[in-house]
Amino acid sequence: MLDAPSRPSARELLSQSGLAPLIPMLYVAWTDGELTAEELRALGEAARAQPWLDLKASSILALWVDPLRPPPPRELALLREHIRTTARGLVGNEHHTLAGLGVHLAQVLGGDAPLGMPLPQLGQALASLEATLGVDGKEAVRSLLPHASRTPHAEAPSHTASFDPKAMTGVLERTYADVRKQVRGWLEDADFHYKEGLDTPAYRDQVFAWLKHLADDGLGQLAFPKGREGGADLGAFIAAFETMAFFDLSLVIKAGVHFGLFGSSILFLGTKRHHQQYLPKVATLELPGCFAMSELGHGSNVRDCETVARYDAKTSEFVIDTPSETARKEWIGNAARHARMATVFAQLEVDGERLGVHALLVPLRDAHGNVLPGIRIEDCGEKMGLNGVDNGRLWFHGVRVPRENLLDRYGQVTEAGEYTSSITGDSKRFFTMLGALVAGRVSVACASLSAAKSALTIAVRYGDLRRQFGPIGAREVRLLDHQSHQLRLLPLVAKAYALDFALEYLVDRYVHRTEDDAREVEALAAGLKAYASWNATATVQEAREACGGQGYLTANRLPSLKADTDVFTTFEGDNTVLMQLVAKGLLTGYRQRFEDDRVFAVLKLIVDRAATVMTDRNPIAGRRTDSDHLRDSDFHLRLLRFREEEILASVSKRIRKRLTAGMEAFEAFNQVQVHLLALAHASVERIVLEQFLRGVAAVKDEALKPVLGRLADLFGLSCLESASGWFLEHGYLEAPKAKAIRKERVQLCAELRPDAVGLVDAFAIPDTCLGAPIGLGRLAPGGERFDDGAADGAREGSADSRAT
Amino acid sequence: MLDAPSRPSARELLSQSGLAPLIPMLYVAWTDGELTAEELRALGEAARAQPWLDLKASSILALWVDPLRPPPPRELALLREHIRTTARGLVGNEHHTLAGLGVHLAQVLGGDAPLGMPLPQLGQALASLEATLGVDGKEAVRSLLPHASRTPHAEAPSHTASFDPKAMTGVLERTYADVRKQVRGWLEDADFHYKEGLDTPAYRDQVFAWLKHLADDGLGQLAFPKGREGGADLGAFIAAFETMAFFDLSLVIKAGVHFGLFGSSILFLGTKRHHQQYLPKVATLELPGCFAMSELGHGSNVRDCETVARYDAKTSEFVIDTPSETARKEWIGNAARHARMATVFAQLEVDGERLGVHALLVPLRDAHGNVLPGIRIEDCGEKMGLNGVDNGRLWFHGVRVPRENLLDRYGQVTEAGEYTSSITGDSKRFFTMLGALVAGRVSVACASLSAAKSALTIAVRYGDLRRQFGPIGAREVRLLDHQSHQLRLLPLVAKAYALDFALEYLVDRYVHRTEDDAREVEALAAGLKAYASWNATATVQEAREACGGQGYLTANRLPSLKADTDVFTTFEGDNTVLMQLVAKGLLTGYRQRFEDDRVFAVLKLIVDRAATVMTDRNPIAGRRTDSDHLRDSDFHLRLLRFREEEILASVSKRIRKRLTAGMEAFEAFNQVQVHLLALAHASVERIVLEQFLRGVAAVKDEALKPVLGRLADLFGLSCLESASGWFLEHGYLEAPKAKAIRKERVQLCAELRPDAVGLVDAFAIPDTCLGAPIGLGRLAPGGERFDDGAADGAREGSADSRAT
Repeated sequence: MLDAPSRPSARELLSQSGLAPLIPMLYVAWTDGELTAEELRALGEAARAQPWLDLKASSILALWVDPLRPPPPRELALLREHIRTTARGLVGNEHHTLAGLGVHLAQVLGGDAPLGMPLPQLGQALASLEATLGVDGKEAVRSLLPHASRTPHAEAPSHTASFDPKAMTGVLERTYADVRKQVRGWLEDADFHYKEGLDTPAYRDQVFAWLKHLADDGLGQLAFPKGREGGADLGAFIAAFETMAFFDLSLVIKAGVHFGLFGSSILFLGTKRHHQQYLPKVATLELPGCFAMSELGHGSNVRDCETVARYDAKTSEFVIDTPSETARKEWIGNAARHARMATVFAQLEVDGERLGVHALLVPLRDAHGNVLPGIRIEDCGEKMGLNGVDNGRLWFHGVRVPRENLLDRYGQVTEAGEYTSSITGDSKRFFTMLGALVAGRVSVACASLSAAKSALTIAVRYGDLRRQFGPIGAREVRLLDHQSHQLRLLPLVAKAYALDFALEYLVDRYVHRTEDDAREVEALAAGLKAYASWNATATVQEAREACGGQGYLTANRLPSLKADTDVFTTFEGDNTVLMQLVAKGLLTGYRQRFEDDRVFAVLKLIVDRAATVMTDRNPIAGRRTDSDHLRDSDFHLRLLRFREEEILASVSKRIRKRLTAGMEAFEAFNQVQVHLLALAHASVERIVLEQFLRGVAAVKDEALKPVLGRLADLFGLSCLESASGWFLEHGYLEAPKAKAIRKERVQLCAELRPDAVGLVDAFAIPDTCLGAPIGLGRLAPGGERFDDGAADGAREGSADSRAT
Repeated sequence: MLDAPSRPSARELLSQSGLAPLIPMLYVAWTDGELTAEELRALGEAARAQPWLDLKASSILALWVDPLRPPPPRELALLREHIRTTARGLVGNEHHTLAGLGVHLAQVLGGDAPLGMPLPQLGQALASLEATLGVDGKEAVRSLLPHASRTPHAEAPSHTASFDPKAMTGVLERTYADVRKQVRGWLEDADFHYKEGLDTPAYRDQVFAWLKHLADDGLGQLAFPKGREGGADLGAFIAAFETMAFFDLSLVIKAGVHFGLFGSSILFLGTKRHHQQYLPKVATLELPGCFAMSELGHGSNVRDCETVARYDAKTSEFVIDTPSETARKEWIGNAARHARMATVFAQLEVDGERLGVHALLVPLRDAHGNVLPGIRIEDCGEKMGLNGVDNGRLWFHGVRVPRENLLDRYGQVTEAGEYTSSITGDSKRFFTMLGALVAGRVSVACASLSAAKSALTIAVRYGDLRRQFGPIGAREVRLLDHQSHQLRLLPLVAKAYALDFALEYLVDRYVHRTEDDAREVEALAAGLKAYASWNATATVQEAREACGGQGYLTANRLPSLKADTDVFTTFEGDNTVLMQLVAKGLLTGYRQRFEDDRVFAVLKLIVDRAATVMTDRNPIAGRRTDSDHLRDSDFHLRLLRFREEEILASVSKRIRKRLTAGMEAFEAFNQVQVHLLALAHASVERIVLEQFLRGVAAVKDEALKPVLGRLADLFGLSCLESASGWFLEHGYLEAPKAKAIRKERVQLCAELRPDAVGLVDAFAIPDTCLGAPIGLGRLAPGGERFDDGAADGAREGSADSRAT
């Protein structure tokens, strides 16, 4: 190889007026980092073909585009400096191209006809060169020219909402508004703020103190009004519970255990004398109680629990025993530390005869907190979350309680040892007793929604403030202006709104339930509890991730929201078990609907379905992909109904086929479990959409309708998209429509984006409850002392030993 | 209304021999709890039409089926007692029906022709009555007859695996087997067990002590072998890291920060003198270090970080400053407590010129742990998890370090203040520097898989032991014998196996990367890090829920697995950002593939695609739904490849359309972000399946092939099912096939179920690392003292005050 001539310096390069218009491209070619040697050479060749270059300029250029001779950074910095100085007049003009910038440089040096060429002609030649370069010229220019400084610590929200968030709050809190306001008032007391660094015993005592505070404020009276025990409005209590769930969830669960489970077991399973004797003390928290139903071996299947309560007619007492290790009472909230009494579920045994599961009141501790004889209590220890609740394990050994301690609304034992009940059949009695406790599930569903709202409030506000990435040289973009971020959070906001209306419906059905629809309401509560708690898990997870590292800091509250709510899918009925209950309810209803004449029924069903299928498979409607059609709630709802009906018919057929072939019921159901879960999901989702639409239709404030409509459309389309495989498979959607649905969802998210902050503001979560700095207009916790100046850093730095 | 006659007693009922065969049905009718008044009446009418009933028997019967006169429980108990006594000989025979039981009762009382009817004829009459009743007769009989006692505390695994788990372990650990064994040996030391109840400072010190222990054992030598600094086998270090991730994840992350980030930054960004001066002290942990890259305002977009390092030629020093609050270094592991030195990323400024981001070694603390002047450190405080790692915030105010502290492999500053670099262009240099640190992503991907394996081991073993629900009267069924439970866990087991092979491929590509494929390997690491960490999040969540309440107990380890891994999706590159990087890499490759002649390229592509579409849209292949076809890995892989190609072509077209229309690049990409993420997902998933199949094909042990084949089929079909909407929409699947895929998946799970425990045993996680009682053959933690007898319960109970 010949010894190559050395590359001329940047100074020499800049001295050639003919090269002036090419400087920006040269700079970008070397600093872009994406150009291959091939591309560099191609650029050089094209540039050297320009008519205005003389031989010297051309040879200097050749050496400057030699891939084997990269100019050092210092030289490139000189080029950049030259461009910046020369083009100072262009600052702020963001729409220049590299060609334009080149023309400008030539013009500054040589006037209106530099290099002997008219400006437009020069511009054209440069533009064609720029195309060869293959980079985004506009961005390259912006990266070259100075720009404003970036990213202040905190800034204002991006948009003013298209509606009045306060008016929206009014809609969300349309029921029991006074109770919600009252509870907010209680929580405004300075005592109710998160206390950091408490160890578990201190945290439990704090939660107990908070609960006592609330009981004194009036929560106890709300649950069990003095003088009219048994006459409380459970809807009001649930609304209080839902509002409290904006604050510490250990407190909510502890309140739920004491008032909701222990208190309600006395209210619903006991009789007047129990009410009078105990409920006033429950209301004031003078008698803290717990609810001892689950056993180690019998969590979901409580009917098979093993604890025994044997009647001893000689002393008119029941004797409670834990016969095996799997019979120990497990997970009993309030038991490890505070409860003085337990509602214990046990197999009732009278005169050698087993009469099924019944509930009895069993004292656990004396007034000084000492555990009573025959009772053993163990702490369940640390949990993922809810460590302010003292869960414990219980064993009973020959523990005697008076005959009157049996909660005997549904089953009584006379002094002589005669068992009576208005409900024949252990099984039916058991389920009636359980049904009386369905309020727990309703409450957990509502608390799940509150937790999801907290997480969304934090993530949406943070996503609106925090900026990351953006066009080169321009200011970074707010997270919520990234398309993927909108699709992460806005469908979950829509779902939270949907659930708000669906849970209103559930509470209403629950409060007004009769013996006739009790089973249906139970299934509704089961399904919505599962749906809402799974949604809380998913929403909190998404919010955590959407806040990045900030979402992982305890100070920003998402970690405790995650940890505390995670068990919501498990307690008060495991979600998977509950969904099977929903499905079985639907199947029973289905059987009853057609039991007169099964053959006829099946025929009728086929005809029904054929009709609906015909309607929707209408090729024109089926292929419509216009926005008007896609945003038609009737269309969404119709599809969800089809799905439910079709899965119901199909799973019913599958089960019948198996039973007919002689398979046992358990196995037959087990073989279609996946279908049962799909059926339950389809049914619950249909109900949620139905109730969302009903609720939106009932809103009177016209100014709120457009945004609510968009939320309903987004929720409806999200339901369809998440099951697009099923709908395509069954011919309810065609490919172009499935595609259009995806596109419409993206579009809806973009339309809702300016309202995002307003929509979470409308949840009206008090700042002290929300707790997270990033949910309250800051980019992060910590660093408060920055304004003191970093000068005293050394002194500050040494404070690191205070690490907790 | 007339005064109705009173219901005859059970004794009277039983005295009528004609009613004997009906007793079981009567009992079930009243105790089933599901029969309506209507159904009761219908049963009564049908029964009374039986020819063998005399008038008296008939009228007694009528009063016993009157819906308004439910018999008291005591009376029903007498009927049950009668049935049990009479049918004692039938105990254990589980296949009797109510009719059969009735015949038996009649027979016991009246011989071979009771009631004047031959037995078969009586049986037929009763069977027809039983059908009227509409309950599951077999289950009813079982609930009537005594059965064995249930649910011991612990029991043996259900099945012996169809393969040798130890041999499978050999396959999973085929690479760096000696290193993995060595690390297991280290972790067997009694010092490495979970210590409960440590507060955060104590936990951090424990983790540091563990790390020192490992460094002494040889981890430091593995990372930075003495005498040949820079010559370490990174694959070995990653294998060690992956194995350590079976134990406490704070320890793993602390090790990753110190060795992987701090140490590697010296190794890759520094030069020989840095290696010699620092690496020996890094290896022994004499010089604990941290990696200060992220800033509060610049987490993902590090290129825009604000910290400045200005060269002062007068003193030959760099001066480091934090110019604003968003510039504070955030989330820096090891900074809050232990690090004595930091690798600080800052904008290098020489002689007023900015030269892009560079890394410098900055001492933080003296040998006594005192923070040095000009430096301020704040503790990030409690986090969701990983609280054994001391994350901190850093501010610098005029901190001076010698010129030699610049890690100057890619950019140097001479004493006189001249900047040189072999890489022109700040951007390219920056990405080269980042690229050198890609090991961090590979390591996080591997640790994610280890965490998923831990969670699956716990959940599968628990699911195999724990029983809940079952046929009435029979023993409850193991959770893993419930279909829905199989579908929860087994696809995740298959995915863990798939990732095991895919990550082997990644490590291999990483270890053998060259300058030519460095970018591709980076994209691969980014994609697999995102895929594996999202999988860990999903797997741990599913495992937690699948273990119910037990999964929520800290003692069972799932809570810490959840909390510790949750940030894996965020750190070492936010997953969403990484996936966009993957997509952009694919688009660049796509552009290069066709850059010679774009028109031709597009044409060629269309032809290519048409060809593949033709092949697969072949109506016969397209409609095949037989098992052989569905379990054909080529079929799975072909579909995943189609998807990737099609999305790539489509997203490329979308972007080009926007750019051509004059849209800026940032906005053009933002508008297709959702598609970019879909593209990245499709690509990564294709790679995982491809590598899984390659790995399985390479296994030599024929005995392992069948189960590995089933796992590959399950993973492949799971990929197809989760995207069935897309495949249907694009015509790659037809409805019957989509349905068949669902069914085949269920079937595969059932086939894999007996091997479930063997498959997680093969992960070979040491018991001490796994830590969870429910993962080690017990149903729950706690209650150890049960064998002492519950008699001393009172004494034990009082111990509850020791609640932690």
